[in-house]
Amino acid sequence: MTMDVQEVMTEMGRSARAAARVLASCSVEQRNEALLQIRAAIAADRHAILAANEMDLEQGRESGLEAALLDRLALTPAQLDVLEQGLSQVAALPDPIGAISDMRQMPSGIDVGTMRVPLGVIGMIYESRPNVTIEAASLCLKAGNAVILRGGSEAIQCNKRLGDSLAAGLSAAGLPAEVAQVVPVVDRAAVRALLTMPECVDMVVPRGGKGLIERVAAESKVPVLAHLDGVCHVYIDADADRDKAHRIALNAKTQRYGTCNTMETLLMAKAQADMLPDLVTALQSEGVEVRGCEASRQAAPDITVDAVEADWSTEYLAPILSVKLVDDVDEAMSHIARYGSNHTESIVTENASTAERFLREVDSGSVMHNASTRFADGFEYGLGAEIGISTGKLHARGPVGLEGLTSRKYIVKGDGHIRQ
Amino acid sequence: MTMDVQEVMTEMGRSARAAARVLASCSVEQRNEALLQIRAAIAADRHAILAANEMDLEQGRESGLEAALLDRLALTPAQLDVLEQGLSQVAALPDPIGAISDMRQMPSGIDVGTMRVPLGVIGMIYESRPNVTIEAASLCLKAGNAVILRGGSEAIQCNKRLGDSLAAGLSAAGLPAEVAQVVPVVDRAAVRALLTMPECVDMVVPRGGKGLIERVAAESKVPVLAHLDGVCHVYIDADADRDKAHRIALNAKTQRYGTCNTMETLLMAKAQADMLPDLVTALQSEGVEVRGCEASRQAAPDITVDAVEADWSTEYLAPILSVKLVDDVDEAMSHIARYGSNHTESIVTENASTAERFLREVDSGSVMHNASTRFADGFEYGLGAEIGISTGKLHARGPVGLEGLTSRKYIVKGDGHIRQ
Repeated sequence: MTMDVQEVMTEMGRSARAAARVLASCSVEQRNEALLQIRAAIAADRHAILAANEMDLEQGRESGLEAALLDRLALTPAQLDVLEQGLSQVAALPDPIGAISDMRQMPSGIDVGTMRVPLGVIGMIYESRPNVTIEAASLCLKAGNAVILRGGSEAIQCNKRLGDSLAAGLSAAGLPAEVAQVVPVVDRAAVRALLTMPECVDMVVPRGGKGLIERVAAESKVPVLAHLDGVCHVYIDADADRDKAHRIALNAKTQRYGTCNTMETLLMAKAQADMLPDLVTALQSEGVEVRGCEASRQAAPDITVDAVEADWSTEYLAPILSVKLVDDVDEAMSHIARYGSNHTESIVTENASTAERFLREVDSGSVMHNASTRFADGFEYGLGAEIGISTGKLHARGPVGLEGLTSRKYIVKGDGHIRQ
Repeated sequence: MTMDVQEVMTEMGRSARAAARVLASCSVEQRNEALLQIRAAIAADRHAILAANEMDLEQGRESGLEAALLDRLALTPAQLDVLEQGLSQVAALPDPIGAISDMRQMPSGIDVGTMRVPLGVIGMIYESRPNVTIEAASLCLKAGNAVILRGGSEAIQCNKRLGDSLAAGLSAAGLPAEVAQVVPVVDRAAVRALLTMPECVDMVVPRGGKGLIERVAAESKVPVLAHLDGVCHVYIDADADRDKAHRIALNAKTQRYGTCNTMETLLMAKAQADMLPDLVTALQSEGVEVRGCEASRQAAPDITVDAVEADWSTEYLAPILSVKLVDDVDEAMSHIARYGSNHTESIVTENASTAERFLREVDSGSVMHNASTRFADGFEYGLGAEIGISTGKLHARGPVGLEGLTSRKYIVKGDGHIRQ
């Protein structure tokens, strides 16, 4: 069985590589046409897609999947509408590839510049939500990449049906169906195979829980674009405007709890300690459990829970916040360097030079001044789309849009030039 | 013993990470001052450095190192002069970090842009030539990175002595000596340790033979910037200018044999076959052994060696060339996709649309039109310096200068902005 899986995956990898070569030579008009044909195919296949999703849900209920997972697994007609609109929106985005930039003449007489090109083949590994199948495929296609889609076993029927719609749309636009392939087997050996074919797969994008990301990062022989944790900080400086500080801290924690750019630890200069009680009251009235260091508990007696060492490196993804009082921006940056996850940190201050130091020295994908960490998002950054968020420092960092799915190569133009 | 090596490396990694944080907050003036202080330290330590190199050479002769290796190991006074000048040149290069670009206001009111920042800690793994110690350290320092330098065991005395000069120069400029550390042990466990500390090392740059690169790529848990092979192609199209084609092919093969951007396979459109005999004569008179496919041997009977399957994927690094006649640009590009190493390929043609297809579709770090592959080089591209060449598609590709030693992060500026 495992042997067969390896064969299936090797063949998918090879055909994806070949499809990527075809795709690299086709125009943006053809790629956009494919996106619209996929939209049409999904519209035509609507009932079959929803029926396949119903089969997955039934299977999930039988095998005792918990309610939250069933909820994420469900694909509603309204969500299908959103998916269809999304395809048109991606088609309308500017072409991320082909542009030549920085062309300059060198002393030797040659002209040198760079061209944006597709990466090649992307491996997507994700859980539950079947709409990722279409969202990821559309972004990869727009950037000129072939994609191999490996969703969760619980969504296999719906994903396979969506794969048929992808194939139909691609074929209708004259492109190989292998541009976007859904892995048809649920065996975990398929994931291992996908992660160990660097000759066929150029980058892997895992989306899901921390367990999934950790497994992928540990096993992969292919570069991985991902973020493991989002332990995001807001630091309220001694020179902060208190009104802005209160507003930003409240928003960064309470606007949504389950997102990776939600604040998990609030750092506050001791000079601001007397604004803490009001802030704690506001957080608690939103249902947030506040855990504090000793100094913060003295400043705000309403904090009844001690923050322990483990709190500083925990991504709660829940209405819980840890609070620490610090001397100054240096102690705040040291804390972030030690416990942070290089995701998103924000300083609230009216002191321009303190802000500049924080922006320059904090080593995170997004560093902010007087803004809520919740803004760390591809759409809020004007990227038009988001394939994921990266806390790695190489290639793409922070929210990753279409550009993160591309590469650059050097272009050299001569007229018979040779090296002396 | 191995346990001790692990401890030594862990401590080096930790102190490099701490030094990188100090470096990230210091000005370009301070980094340039450190480069000049290192130059002064090397000048002051000249005799000790040359004496240490003499010890390595003696040890090498005793242990029977071959002449070519001894030659690469030797550090001459003239080479020390070049190293010293190089430090001043790197100091004079523009600052690669700190610049904020693409700052734009979003509909929400926040301003979003990106800032160039150091990568953090670089691990250099290299062989023989001790001057790499200083060259690599100077580029890492200029880009605001700490570096851990692991040279070949045969150069250990000289490298350790150069490490002392690096430390002296850094200290004189008020920077931690741990910004540039030479690994003091020759145990191979040190390499393994360096490759498995992603928490302390952000990128590894191996420089040396194919065996070294393969081992590093296979073992590393840290991103690797490298090129394995340079199987570079020149394709002479049916619409080529024959004079340019002859000149470029000759230069791409014979200007230097041991470099990774030297042509190893010549592809020629059948329509040009009657220019092959003259070209073969010219190559052979330079001492090049020409190996041909059947059709090329018919076109040029002076080719007396058959090219076999293995030839098409071999980087000779020697005066040997394989030649293949092809129907057209499509067959040339298929051959390159199958046998090439994604390093550097060049088309010779006067047909603008054929050239455009080749430039767009060939998936290599450098793609050229009417120019010799020998131009694929950081200095020829105006990068000011070169840390290596990458055939990977992520992060940095082709010749890599200071920019490849940096990362970008998002900068967000608000005025109390919160997400709705």
